[in-house]
Amino acid sequence: MIKERLFTPGPVPLPPQVIKALGQQIIHHRTPEFTNIFLQTREKLQKLLNTNRDVLMFASSGTGAMEAAIVNFFNEGDKVLVINAGKFGERWRDLGNTFGLNVIDYQIEWGKTYDKDKVNDYVKSNPDLKGILVQHSETSTTTLHDLKFLADVSKSLDDCLLVVDGITSVGVYKVYPEEIGIDILITGSQKALMLPPGLSILYYSEKAEKRLEKSKLPKYYFSVKAESKKQSKGQTAYTPAINLIIALNESLQLILDEGLDNLERRHQILADMTREAMKALGLKLLSENPSNSATGVFTPDGIDADKFRKDLLKIGVRVAGGQDHLKGKIIRIAHMGYFDYLDMIEVVSAIEIALYKNGYNVEMGKGVKKAQEIYINNV
Amino acid sequence: MIKERLFTPGPVPLPPQVIKALGQQIIHHRTPEFTNIFLQTREKLQKLLNTNRDVLMFASSGTGAMEAAIVNFFNEGDKVLVINAGKFGERWRDLGNTFGLNVIDYQIEWGKTYDKDKVNDYVKSNPDLKGILVQHSETSTTTLHDLKFLADVSKSLDDCLLVVDGITSVGVYKVYPEEIGIDILITGSQKALMLPPGLSILYYSEKAEKRLEKSKLPKYYFSVKAESKKQSKGQTAYTPAINLIIALNESLQLILDEGLDNLERRHQILADMTREAMKALGLKLLSENPSNSATGVFTPDGIDADKFRKDLLKIGVRVAGGQDHLKGKIIRIAHMGYFDYLDMIEVVSAIEIALYKNGYNVEMGKGVKKAQEIYINNV
Repeated sequence: MIKERLFTPGPVPLPPQVIKALGQQIIHHRTPEFTNIFLQTREKLQKLLNTNRDVLMFASSGTGAMEAAIVNFFNEGDKVLVINAGKFGERWRDLGNTFGLNVIDYQIEWGKTYDKDKVNDYVKSNPDLKGILVQHSETSTTTLHDLKFLADVSKSLDDCLLVVDGITSVGVYKVYPEEIGIDILITGSQKALMLPPGLSILYYSEKAEKRLEKSKLPKYYFSVKAESKKQSKGQTAYTPAINLIIALNESLQLILDEGLDNLERRHQILADMTREAMKALGLKLLSENPSNSATGVFTPDGIDADKFRKDLLKIGVRVAGGQDHLKGKIIRIAHMGYFDYLDMIEVVSAIEIALYKNGYNVEMGKGVKKAQEIYINNV
Repeated sequence: MIKERLFTPGPVPLPPQVIKALGQQIIHHRTPEFTNIFLQTREKLQKLLNTNRDVLMFASSGTGAMEAAIVNFFNEGDKVLVINAGKFGERWRDLGNTFGLNVIDYQIEWGKTYDKDKVNDYVKSNPDLKGILVQHSETSTTTLHDLKFLADVSKSLDDCLLVVDGITSVGVYKVYPEEIGIDILITGSQKALMLPPGLSILYYSEKAEKRLEKSKLPKYYFSVKAESKKQSKGQTAYTPAINLIIALNESLQLILDEGLDNLERRHQILADMTREAMKALGLKLLSENPSNSATGVFTPDGIDADKFRKDLLKIGVRVAGGQDHLKGKIIRIAHMGYFDYLDMIEVVSAIEIALYKNGYNVEMGKGVKKAQEIYINNV
């Protein structure tokens, strides 16, 4: 018997409290009971983002909230700069193009983050930018993009919104939109919020709110105005994802009980343990500015990463591979959500064994030792 | 201790098999394991609708699939006739207006169905109709709209699609789009499919498929083309509602094991038991052409329906009320999904007790007796 351990950067394992909440008889959503849970959950989301403003929930995967960020706050022809450094950067670009925005596609080599001078150049030649669209953590390349610089740039312009996909950063980092200067922040349920997919979340700033009246793009299911009116009163415009919201109430409680400082620190240590172990084994990291949500690492020359993933699965570990031109070259190991330190030791150990089985010259326990040292020094 | 029994027309109670499927650790969606479940579920949906064509699943509530029916198959300015006989008819109208369709709003008194002559008149003056949009079962008024006539009308026109919201009819009736002549059929998870909300379903005909290339309305999250390409291979364009799909695989198995003839017959008997019991108690039905998904009934003069619902809740039964101008006037009792005959006896009995407590002249057991007789004669 081999147990399958999920180390993919979404979905990630569900805590028992969440599984329990999901495996319950349904309750009706137009009841004081559900309204009460909804408002509790909303308040916890506000705590997670350190805001008193609207934080809306949609019954959709994260891409739905990305669409909401476009159709509610922009107009056809609006010029936007997309920080496109991976699969999800491409999604901002495609969404922008689909809805007729004038997209400036700043393409960045996968694994790298943006260049500040380049951004400054774009902004100088395009002072009429209406938005900068970015992933906080680009999941496909496990890269973190600094938001503070982009927020400052955005603020320096006449009427520009910083739109952030925080799908794999909210719940990993303290992502406080008002401190950072984010205008629209979206996230999804199946990442650090430790739920199944099907629920997405959207925050918008006061500055963004002014756009709501001006935006003429058609929207119905993802209407921020319709949802805002209802959700502040504990209801939704359309039938909500009842059982995911009930489960979110549980998972947010786990997060708030841990505390956001502790949560951020735990993720830092989990990521450090993994990254340093990989380096100790002589492997090369994919990202020049890695995110703590997941670690991308190249398999050694001659070892196909997708074959390597199958070897890991035989030992009991499921990791993700690379997309597009990174397919067969990298593996990605999740840290976000319901993971603790021994989980990282497990995955490092499995990688050592799989490297050995693939004929790679590896000293057993070398990566594990490195991870253990980081644990001892930090926890 | 009083147990709360859910008799609302969505969400409806979940069978234990579904609860069990929901209360499980998550699996990854880009795996052969999930692909296998996805394709099984898709095949069962095809059996449910008696079709070999595409039946797509979206991570959204039913309204999302309604939006998909508009944005993938129509263009700005397209003239459509909306059979607007309730809250969900209004939703077709509002969706059509939102996306710039030229909506002919055929308003019908709540509780009634359409008039064939009226439809013929509309069609005669508008031979350029691109669509007829209707609810099969209008949940807000518990009314069934005949589809066969509308299908024939639609076929008589040059290029007109019959678009059907089957949210509370699929799984209650045998809704076979190809036999009936439905071009687009949508449904949702939290009704007769016996799941939590958050999954919607869309079927489209060969005739509708030809519109996909012509439709210029922007779409991304609800793109039928993007999903069709992926879903036939057991994947989805964006992260699917993993645990709802796994649970749908279970609930569809229950439906197929019962058999669609039996399922349709059971719902007919459940509805007959309830309706005849209500009439035996001297109460008036809301609908002139009632749907077997739920029964709407007026409370007697002088008894506020919302107060009456609270009385029922004290006895252990949650039913729905009326919307808009029917608020306080009616109650709605669900039959769709995980209900059997004794469930209906329970709700009838509770209504008798509540009527008595409200000073209504009622002979205890009179409605129950009627329901029992129907049971004896039919099961």
